[in-house]
Amino acid sequence: MRYAVLGTGEVGRTLAGKLVALGHEVTLGSRTKDNAAALAWAQEAGPGGHNGTFADAAAFGEVVVNATGGMVSLQALEAAGAANLAGKLLVDVANPLAFADGEVVLDPVGSDSLGERIQRAFPQARVVKTLNTVNSAVMVDPSRVPGEHVLFLSGEDTAAKEQTAALLAEFGWPRERVVDLGGITSARGTEAYLLLWVKAMGALGHADFNVALQRAR
Amino acid sequence: MRYAVLGTGEVGRTLAGKLVALGHEVTLGSRTKDNAAALAWAQEAGPGGHNGTFADAAAFGEVVVNATGGMVSLQALEAAGAANLAGKLLVDVANPLAFADGEVVLDPVGSDSLGERIQRAFPQARVVKTLNTVNSAVMVDPSRVPGEHVLFLSGEDTAAKEQTAALLAEFGWPRERVVDLGGITSARGTEAYLLLWVKAMGALGHADFNVALQRAR
Repeated sequence: MRYAVLGTGEVGRTLAGKLVALGHEVTLGSRTKDNAAALAWAQEAGPGGHNGTFADAAAFGEVVVNATGGMVSLQALEAAGAANLAGKLLVDVANPLAFADGEVVLDPVGSDSLGERIQRAFPQARVVKTLNTVNSAVMVDPSRVPGEHVLFLSGEDTAAKEQTAALLAEFGWPRERVVDLGGITSARGTEAYLLLWVKAMGALGHADFNVALQRAR
Repeated sequence: MRYAVLGTGEVGRTLAGKLVALGHEVTLGSRTKDNAAALAWAQEAGPGGHNGTFADAAAFGEVVVNATGGMVSLQALEAAGAANLAGKLLVDVANPLAFADGEVVLDPVGSDSLGERIQRAFPQARVVKTLNTVNSAVMVDPSRVPGEHVLFLSGEDTAAKEQTAALLAEFGWPRERVVDLGGITSARGTEAYLLLWVKAMGALGHADFNVALQRAR
């Protein structure tokens, strides 16, 4: 399968690297064609790894992964081009976070979400929010963390969510540990959870953790 | 110990009932002295259970539990009276939630929290946010849910947090499953988590669940 991964930060490079390791072809997209991180990544990744602009990547990918910083995701996706996203699964792993006065803040938060904003801005893309509740190492290697910890799916398109679950299974996430929360408004929940995640990371002293849903029935 | 439980909804009555069952004396506080739910509760609770106004309850309690609706908590605590809260542990279990267009919304959310607002409004109270991440049945009977699921503590006063952890231990929560998230700003995390909790409840079909923190190390 051909993937576009937008964003050359740690999350983007980790996801792109895992996809190449799984045998997929990946174009890592950035604002400029000569982005140093993307060039270096593509050279290391070997024949399955390419780099280019956001538009180059989105045109290349059958599936597009948004791993840009959440505060700039809409601009990045505009640069990728609505036509290059139309009809495609768009996996949104970004959180719209910033730091203010030493605290993490999200914008939007609560009554809207980045996932919804992306779906509204690109109505022909099939947006699925997932993976935004764990750090990049856990995203692509869930066995780093013991136990039946979970991921969540939010999106309007059931087939797109199942396609995402199949991708997550390639990463090592069993289907029964991927919880479908419903429509894209449920991205409000997983994005807002980041505010707890950050505090839990502080309490634990590291980011190698995730939540399990323990159920009475 | 003498407890004030403010709020006669399911959460308040459940917590008050558990405290009486544990041998404590409880005054269940409401806006009016003749609140029917509070009267009925006190009659059923037996000699350890009393009812009264918010001010009656707060004057009575050595510890005050805020189990009022989060949107009216500040008014309820004003009615309870700053002098009746001064120096006391104030356990805040409320979430500032409402429904809008079929979705749960929180106010404040993200860059502030109810826990912080209460601490700012009552600087002499020793506010600890906890229990707001599970339903009332799980609050007082964690064994309803299997596994090493957790609660969180947020507050400025370490001794107040340890006193709260001891109370939670009476409810059945082992100390190692009570995670201190830090200062009262961390209440932003557990309150915002409610947006995920509500969606997880929808996906699971019931509220008898909680999260475990699975850790790589």
